[in-house]
Amino acid sequence: MAHDVTRLRNEAVEIFRAGLKAVDPVGVVKRHLVRRGHHLLVDDRSYDLTAYEGVYVIGMGKAAAAMARAVEEVLGDRVREGRINVKYGYGLPLKKIRVTEAGHPLPDEAGLRGTAHIIELLQRTGERDLVICLISGGGSALLPYPAEGLTLTDKQQVTQLLLQCGATIHEINAVRKHISRVKGGRLARWAFPSALVSLILSDVIGDDLDTIASGPTVPDRTTFADCLHILAKYGLEARIPARVLDYLRRGAQGEIPETPKPSDPLFERVQNVIVGNNRLALVAARQRANELGYHSLILSSFIRGETREVAHVHAAIAQEILSTGNPLPRPACVISGGETTVTIRGDGLGGRNQEFVLAAALDIDGLHDVVVLSGGTDGTDGPTDAAGALADGTTIARARQRRLDPERYLLNNDSYHFFEQLDDLLITGPTYTNVMDLRLVIVG
Amino acid sequence: MAHDVTRLRNEAVEIFRAGLKAVDPVGVVKRHLVRRGHHLLVDDRSYDLTAYEGVYVIGMGKAAAAMARAVEEVLGDRVREGRINVKYGYGLPLKKIRVTEAGHPLPDEAGLRGTAHIIELLQRTGERDLVICLISGGGSALLPYPAEGLTLTDKQQVTQLLLQCGATIHEINAVRKHISRVKGGRLARWAFPSALVSLILSDVIGDDLDTIASGPTVPDRTTFADCLHILAKYGLEARIPARVLDYLRRGAQGEIPETPKPSDPLFERVQNVIVGNNRLALVAARQRANELGYHSLILSSFIRGETREVAHVHAAIAQEILSTGNPLPRPACVISGGETTVTIRGDGLGGRNQEFVLAAALDIDGLHDVVVLSGGTDGTDGPTDAAGALADGTTIARARQRRLDPERYLLNNDSYHFFEQLDDLLITGPTYTNVMDLRLVIVG
Repeated sequence: MAHDVTRLRNEAVEIFRAGLKAVDPVGVVKRHLVRRGHHLLVDDRSYDLTAYEGVYVIGMGKAAAAMARAVEEVLGDRVREGRINVKYGYGLPLKKIRVTEAGHPLPDEAGLRGTAHIIELLQRTGERDLVICLISGGGSALLPYPAEGLTLTDKQQVTQLLLQCGATIHEINAVRKHISRVKGGRLARWAFPSALVSLILSDVIGDDLDTIASGPTVPDRTTFADCLHILAKYGLEARIPARVLDYLRRGAQGEIPETPKPSDPLFERVQNVIVGNNRLALVAARQRANELGYHSLILSSFIRGETREVAHVHAAIAQEILSTGNPLPRPACVISGGETTVTIRGDGLGGRNQEFVLAAALDIDGLHDVVVLSGGTDGTDGPTDAAGALADGTTIARARQRRLDPERYLLNNDSYHFFEQLDDLLITGPTYTNVMDLRLVIVG
Repeated sequence: MAHDVTRLRNEAVEIFRAGLKAVDPVGVVKRHLVRRGHHLLVDDRSYDLTAYEGVYVIGMGKAAAAMARAVEEVLGDRVREGRINVKYGYGLPLKKIRVTEAGHPLPDEAGLRGTAHIIELLQRTGERDLVICLISGGGSALLPYPAEGLTLTDKQQVTQLLLQCGATIHEINAVRKHISRVKGGRLARWAFPSALVSLILSDVIGDDLDTIASGPTVPDRTTFADCLHILAKYGLEARIPARVLDYLRRGAQGEIPETPKPSDPLFERVQNVIVGNNRLALVAARQRANELGYHSLILSSFIRGETREVAHVHAAIAQEILSTGNPLPRPACVISGGETTVTIRGDGLGGRNQEFVLAAALDIDGLHDVVVLSGGTDGTDGPTDAAGALADGTTIARARQRRLDPERYLLNNDSYHFFEQLDDLLITGPTYTNVMDLRLVIVG
């Protein structure tokens, strides 16, 4: 059963890269957007391109540029023009589609300008036009457009206060959608009466359409009245900016149009399609693991929770595989997805994936033939240039030889500097995609 | 795919009980202690009872009484006498073996007296005697015997200080073994030159022999010098009672005998046998799940970590099974063991198993055909009369109908009162066994 740990580590990286490749934005868009003569096929629908005067492209999110490139490759000169907003550094050269780089996770003036360009474009489209909308993770911050009379700062304050009160993500989203001019289906209203096809790369657990990028092209079930109830529930009426409260009250009194509801006929002109998600990456990773001769298992794409605790569970599975061959025999590859969180207590540098691997490294210390890898599919784990890290049963011993104290690095949330010194960072560079994280536990 | 959730809940309890039954102390002892004519077979060894003058029984831990009953049933009149220490309320009527009920988790005077009886008994045994020692969880607190000149309070203070400094369990155990007259193999020295058979019911992750009950009959690899290093590492020399430091220094200078090391010839007279552990319960649970028609999977017997975070991972697996049939198809039963921890922030009543189920209930809220169960095999979860609890996708809705706020109960670590009002506690009464916890995730 002796294995070369270097080989196991290389195979872990190979499996991770196979997962990444499956969610490459160009590839996933082309799988759902197929040109057949003068027809554009999008899953079960067919758009007769001769029936449309113009094809326009809009988009927002980290993957928008790469998705836009795929649209240009599929539709060529049929694209009349386009406008997309991406994160700084995430632009790519395109032919017809113009890119605005803007702030993320905090929206900024550039984002506001880019959104204005998108709205201006939509105002010029009509019933005989086809609009293709490219949505991906980060699309909420990258499409800022506060309701009339409100500011970006107003929105941020409200979000901050709701977060501090322990409001659920659904409650926070209900309020955010109602103080925006584009979220919660309102972007689809701007596009109406054009035909609208939204291609969506999911970065949320469960692929909830109205959560991804705050659902700009998806019906909203919440109301202004719900928002007032939520503020009352957490006693925030007196703490949020007065003009936000005033705005929501006017909305509840019918003075401001509601977000479009599922019954709104405008959605007859809308097709929302999930082109890629975390699961797609997990399935491709499993495929590669199987090809490499591993018994493999997809644990879950719904994984969430404090990253170091989630790491304990993953390490526990490695220990069980070593001891008894459960839940699957060696050589084994356990694959998990979703997205964990980190409660920051120190002032170090790292991200949820690197911290996951550091916590797991402590648990698998001394075990033979065990490798753990965790990486963000966007190539950026926290505020670092690494996607994640990898570790094996010798990692902690190698660290101690160099007089690094792993527990101290973990306590200080300083996983980046720990793995940097061991040369164990997983570096991919920007991947232009974003479907949360991919974790691997390999027992050779 | 519609299932009756009541049936799923009943089956979850049935699977849990099958796990419990497999680690019943009487059963596990009898599986490893077999009388064949005048021979006593213990795994691969055979003891010729005609060669021994007396057979004596000693024991410590929550399961000691039930284990002792099994020994009396196997050996009948061949047992000459015995002395065991159990937790208050964990005694059972026995024929030859006398039971001392004592304090746990905090040792007390009764425990000291019971230990003195055990030592006195061992001093009367010799080369032609056979001693059967019954070890189970809680055996460390239930066999208190501080080193000469030290008190129970001294030991507790040192343990407390080490815990607060973040010392590892191995470091804490090294020190504890060296300020005790019975732990770290020293009990085996008292028994020498008798033949000694230790039957051990494991309550620790990984079944580490020298950790269970602080390894009274197992060689110790740590030294007095190690203890001084540990105290120095955490800067505790000036903070622990002076007489403890003095004692350890005298030990390091060779003035006090070391704990017996693996090379010590006394261990030629000792056979340590693990008769039951968490895995045994998991395997039996899987067997019952299979009989009931479930696809089943043992996730790990090494599970540890903050219970509500571990619950997120378990719920994530349920969600994945519902969505994609990974890691196994429906009807599915995922089984896990080990032992989680709870960081107490509130002042409610509960235990790690009940809190696990409460956290999981929030995650599976609204899901059909999902049941989560978690229970302590000793029948006592935290300071409550419940072994654990169970929940399904309707639990949270039922709670809200009764105006219970589940998040508030979770924040207040008050899972007992939450489940008590819903009549969803898992009650077994004392089981007289202890192999950590058993968790089930069922998707019908």
